[in-house]
Amino acid sequence: MAIRVFVTGGTFDKEYDELRGKLFFRDSHLAEMLRMGRNRVAVEIRTLMMVDSLEMTDADRELIARNCREVPEERIVITHGTDSLVETARYLAGEVDGKTVVLTGAMIPIAFGSSDGLFNLGGALTAVQALPGGVYITMNGRIFPWDDVRKNRETGVFESLG
Amino acid sequence: MAIRVFVTGGTFDKEYDELRGKLFFRDSHLAEMLRMGRNRVAVEIRTLMMVDSLEMTDADRELIARNCREVPEERIVITHGTDSLVETARYLAGEVDGKTVVLTGAMIPIAFGSSDGLFNLGGALTAVQALPGGVYITMNGRIFPWDDVRKNRETGVFESLG
Amino acid sequence: MAIRVFVTGGTFDKEYDELRGKLFFRDSHLAEMLRMGRNRVAVEIRTLMMVDSLEMTDADRELIARNCREVPEERIVITHGTDSLVETARYLAGEVDGKTVVLTGAMIPIAFGSSDGLFNLGGALTAVQALPGGVYITMNGRIFPWDDVRKNRETGVFESLG
Amino acid sequence: MAIRVFVTGGTFDKEYDELRGKLFFRDSHLAEMLRMGRNRVAVEIRTLMMVDSLEMTDADRELIARNCREVPEERIVITHGTDSLVETARYLAGEVDGKTVVLTGAMIPIAFGSSDGLFNLGGALTAVQALPGGVYITMNGRIFPWDDVRKNRETGVFESLG
Repeated sequence: MAIRVFVTGGTFDKEYDELRGKLFFRDSHLAEMLRMGRNRVAVEIRTLMMVDSLEMTDADRELIARNCREVPEERIVITHGTDSLVETARYLAGEVDGKTVVLTGAMIPIAFGSSDGLFNLGGALTAVQALPGGVYITMNGRIFPWDDVRKNRETGVFESLG
Repeated sequence: MAIRVFVTGGTFDKEYDELRGKLFFRDSHLAEMLRMGRNRVAVEIRTLMMVDSLEMTDADRELIARNCREVPEERIVITHGTDSLVETARYLAGEVDGKTVVLTGAMIPIAFGSSDGLFNLGGALTAVQALPGGVYITMNGRIFPWDDVRKNRETGVFESLG
Repeated sequence: MAIRVFVTGGTFDKEYDELRGKLFFRDSHLAEMLRMGRNRVAVEIRTLMMVDSLEMTDADRELIARNCREVPEERIVITHGTDSLVETARYLAGEVDGKTVVLTGAMIPIAFGSSDGLFNLGGALTAVQALPGGVYITMNGRIFPWDDVRKNRETGVFESLG
Repeated sequence: MAIRVFVTGGTFDKEYDELRGKLFFRDSHLAEMLRMGRNRVAVEIRTLMMVDSLEMTDADRELIARNCREVPEERIVITHGTDSLVETARYLAGEVDGKTVVLTGAMIPIAFGSSDGLFNLGGALTAVQALPGGVYITMNGRIFPWDDVRKNRETGVFESLG
């Protein structure tokens, strides 16, 4: 069965606004990334929102949880801003049962040549097929269960609580 | 414990020779790729050879197998040309026991802006942490056990035998 | 004789701050761009400032003008933010005599894979060798004398007054 | 009046063949490059041939010359393989009169992330507007008249005869 991918925004999808010289959101880069990765796994993509994760509310998280519960797919990847990735993972752990959910993000926008996004997306799509039911975060080569991860605010790096 | 990465060459590491207008091998791009992916998993890299996989011999495969057996790491990623990726996986399945070995490659050299290599490397490094002992190929989002995969010569795509 | 290049900042040199998710200035990308362009013209680079051109003051412009007058080189390229590129060109036209000065910029930061910066830099370095004394702006394939150019605020495009 | 661009192949337009692991020609990258450079000069592109310049014959050169003479545009850029760039420039100098013709090439294919092509194209398009009638080669920041340039076979670099 196909993997479901939910897009919620975050660094992944930030673009450069040529007129105003600022970063903004337009469309998701997911389809383009899967094309570059020559992805061969069946994937259904749905954009749920396009927000900076600092601005994500509990209503947004409930929307994500409901979508996770309602889609037929049992393996779900969510692209998400890194600032509240851990909070959303914790929320979903309480709301979604019996599915494998992998959240991932990027430190550098895909629109930049040097983004880590393609590496992270490859990791998330692979992890979601190999891991048992539960909620996980995969970032920069690492796999974390939702209850053993934090984002270190000083270094920007995701790390185990242990 | 760290993941061991063995480099054997293949499309991953092809470079463009400006003087002669041909593709050739120089150094591995692995370290550069891990930097771009902002990789945070401990990784030990060793270049075993730098060959086109069409030219890989059984002596080369035995060298890879011996290295897999002798290193202390139990999780091993091998970057390899796609043309004989399946043959090497089968060889290792008979020679390496009790470790998780994931082979991966690229359809497009890393030196090209549009390579699938970063996506595949992210997948392989994640898969090797999540999968039980055995030999696998991960390519373009898919995970194959060594005995259920072939490279379709006409399309270039890896597919299940089933 | 070598060409002098003065760096003043602008979109050219904006970087992505991974921790704060914002654009900022660090070091100039000029040397890296010349390496990618395999530049073979002798070039002396000096960073005069690293500012958003909206924040450039007349004191900054006088600093640029003085540097243009004082260096021995008679052919000068200036990388500059696009928002006040025209103002600086006009200022230099009144302050620098007998030299060929070409100002250029970028619509998209170099750190983005899809930047126009390399195209513009190639144009500016070539124009400064081919044009007679005077102050010019080269952007996106076009050459403008300092007194026949404006930046269209709605489209972001540089255009002739005529 | 618009600038005419003739495409003849060369390193500029080499692609990577995923199935056979070799470089080949498909379509020109010119339009894509002009889009990335956000080019604003009116340009008419025509692909005359798509060959490695080592294989270019005098019949090919006559075809290029005839096209230079027959188009209404007086400013012409030609993208060309570097190996016989100098020979074609010399041929055109004897066959085309009263127009500004600038030949350029690339050391690295555009399909590679690190190509010098965009830098060279920016230079050629600017040079053709600024230079008087005659035949020139622009490469890697330099401008050469057709009769004062050679390609150094050992270094791959274009240099003055003097």
